[in-house]
Amino acid sequence: MNILDIIDKKEKNEKLSQEELQYVVDGYLNGTIKDYQMSAFLTEIDLLGLSEEETINLTNIMLHSGEILNLGFDNITDKHSTGGVGDKTTIVLAPLVASLGVKIAKMSGRGLGHTGGTIDKLESIEGFQTSMTLEKFKNQVAKIGIALVGQMGNLVPADKKIYALRDVTGTVDSISLIASSIMSKKLASGASNIVIDLKVGSGALVNTLDEAKELAHLMVKIGNINQRKTACVITNMNQPLGFAIGNSVEVLEAIDTLKGQGPEDLTKLVIKLGGIMTHLALNIDEKEAEEKVKENLFNQKGYQKMLEWVKAQGGNINHIPVAQNKITILAPITGYISNIDALKIGKLARKLGAGRLNKDDKIDLTVGIVLKHKVGDYIEKGQPLVDIFYNQKQISEEEILSCYTFQNEKVNPPKLIIDIIKPEKYISQTK
Amino acid sequence: MNILDIIDKKEKNEKLSQEELQYVVDGYLNGTIKDYQMSAFLTEIDLLGLSEEETINLTNIMLHSGEILNLGFDNITDKHSTGGVGDKTTIVLAPLVASLGVKIAKMSGRGLGHTGGTIDKLESIEGFQTSMTLEKFKNQVAKIGIALVGQMGNLVPADKKIYALRDVTGTVDSISLIASSIMSKKLASGASNIVIDLKVGSGALVNTLDEAKELAHLMVKIGNINQRKTACVITNMNQPLGFAIGNSVEVLEAIDTLKGQGPEDLTKLVIKLGGIMTHLALNIDEKEAEEKVKENLFNQKGYQKMLEWVKAQGGNINHIPVAQNKITILAPITGYISNIDALKIGKLARKLGAGRLNKDDKIDLTVGIVLKHKVGDYIEKGQPLVDIFYNQKQISEEEILSCYTFQNEKVNPPKLIIDIIKPEKYISQTK
Repeated sequence: MNILDIIDKKEKNEKLSQEELQYVVDGYLNGTIKDYQMSAFLTEIDLLGLSEEETINLTNIMLHSGEILNLGFDNITDKHSTGGVGDKTTIVLAPLVASLGVKIAKMSGRGLGHTGGTIDKLESIEGFQTSMTLEKFKNQVAKIGIALVGQMGNLVPADKKIYALRDVTGTVDSISLIASSIMSKKLASGASNIVIDLKVGSGALVNTLDEAKELAHLMVKIGNINQRKTACVITNMNQPLGFAIGNSVEVLEAIDTLKGQGPEDLTKLVIKLGGIMTHLALNIDEKEAEEKVKENLFNQKGYQKMLEWVKAQGGNINHIPVAQNKITILAPITGYISNIDALKIGKLARKLGAGRLNKDDKIDLTVGIVLKHKVGDYIEKGQPLVDIFYNQKQISEEEILSCYTFQNEKVNPPKLIIDIIKPEKYISQTK
Repeated sequence: MNILDIIDKKEKNEKLSQEELQYVVDGYLNGTIKDYQMSAFLTEIDLLGLSEEETINLTNIMLHSGEILNLGFDNITDKHSTGGVGDKTTIVLAPLVASLGVKIAKMSGRGLGHTGGTIDKLESIEGFQTSMTLEKFKNQVAKIGIALVGQMGNLVPADKKIYALRDVTGTVDSISLIASSIMSKKLASGASNIVIDLKVGSGALVNTLDEAKELAHLMVKIGNINQRKTACVITNMNQPLGFAIGNSVEVLEAIDTLKGQGPEDLTKLVIKLGGIMTHLALNIDEKEAEEKVKENLFNQKGYQKMLEWVKAQGGNINHIPVAQNKITILAPITGYISNIDALKIGKLARKLGAGRLNKDDKIDLTVGIVLKHKVGDYIEKGQPLVDIFYNQKQISEEEILSCYTFQNEKVNPPKLIIDIIKPEKYISQTK
């Protein structure tokens, strides 16, 4: 076997065998296949696609390129978001479903580009530890049913190396490569139930609903073939989720939401995703599960679990510092808000210091942007539109206003939950 | 402008502007665009193609990436072969047309892979110099009307760098990239008339007639747009050309051919290509030109010009050493030869030491394979089929016989000259 023959075969769009895909992944990891050859191969996949079977095989090969976590628990439930702007869902969802007995033992990532990361956000809570030994992690899950850390172990090294190359060769947007990247990581982290929040829209990884549906079906299939109960919720990411975009401001909004006082869209999403997670984990009817989630949201049992969780990881929930400097941008005209560009707002938050352009950039956890209104709202000229919390770096009124469009006619708020993709029958690894 | 945006644009198969192509070539040459990014871009071109306009622009940009040779002569005529097995055409053709007053000031290459190179072949003539100063080169052309050397000047550095990458990323077979590579080099070497011998078949760069025709039309168009009279002859390369495959054995066959005693196929090809070259260079009718070529082939004026040429470049035509060891392979059965696999024979000659696998490999100029018969010939069991001239390295009887197929029914010799592609009207740079 050699890489040039495999590149030629793929050029003719012939089916690649398990052995050929294995040869490519192994060769790339051990350096016999060069960056420029892998780049040619990934470009072919980006242009020609992979069959479902090939994608399933590739995922499996990547999964086995490194450690596979075994936490010693049955029935761990994981949730993954493909990344958006203002997406603090995990911070609400994890303690909320944990309060119902759903076991959460989760790894999350840091932010890159215009999207934030759960680990950065949690670190805005004074003292909160996002790394710990596997022993302590397991103990915490056993004791309080929830633990959340950054990367642990050498999971899926093939994805790390391939993803870094995709990032600089214009091959991030291949459905097959996205599916194999996400699912190999989820499978390696050892969860039995996987719920994916697939964002679609201007601020998201995929921009069209067709692509989102294809990707969702593929991920659900890969999960279930690997005996994980997997479902995918397709949600709108044309405007930011909730009001807050930043790190500490998002944690504060998550806490409000756990107290039943959160933004309508975030609350709705948490109930939907939490319902599915609880349904899969506790094996109860989905409607019943959703009711339980609502109950624990409004009786603050979820919030109590958050207090317990933050304390267990060394955090002080009473100290989540926000930047002292604040300016308020006022509405320039009277009318309905017809669009708030998530991608642009995400980039402005990054410009303030809340996000990274490169992996090693330092971020400022206290700065952020807090919207006062969402798409569909009626606003009068001169009313507060946005609060900006800043330190050294600033953004201008023009920059903020360029994210907004207004119109005179009434606008309906956009549909948040667009579709839910489930398998015909969940396949479980546990009996 | 940035390379990721250009890769994205090409992924959508949108037309690339002159400026975008210039940006890619410049960036790759100066190192700001990396190998893995160029590889992604070349793979896109390989899969999606380029439009005729884009290919013309790319050729022009590559042409201007380095020196453009100005020899100070009008009306230089060049001939290019896309490479085959046993292809000693240039060595016959160049002195033959020079003897008719067609000015030849030519650069040729060395062999790589299973195909030989004119420069290696000429070096099998004792003392023959394949490099000289530009001054000496010009003087020789002025004096005897013919000079032939290896690379001179820093012509088309973009092609050198891009070709090396194509070679290791499975992107050699793109029609657009082949056309821009060949034509940028031909244009940079300063000829006014360009005749291309485009080989098609098992031993050639392109394997199908459809691809060959597309490539031929494209090259003719590029040449004529650049005001060079350009024509392309598509010829069969399923079996080797002539009988000899190697270096010195091919030169000896070229000399025989110049004496009017060469193989039928090679003689025919030389008359056709020489006719077109003479027609373009001397501005006379093509039929008349062909007659003149035939005349100088059979009255040995071409051979006299070869003697003059070899002497001018320091060679001793009476000393062209051939390896002392010879074995003769006999026909294993009685019947008609229905196929002689050019690619396989080329690889066997390389195995003997006549060719290179890598650019720095040393080759043995004295070894070679000499066929006794061609496709269509009737042969009896036990008659000589092939002579092998060897030194240290050997090839087996089985290996040679595996290149042959025989059959009982009569076989017609394959058509050598398949098609001739010319522009509707030649455009000339000279008035």
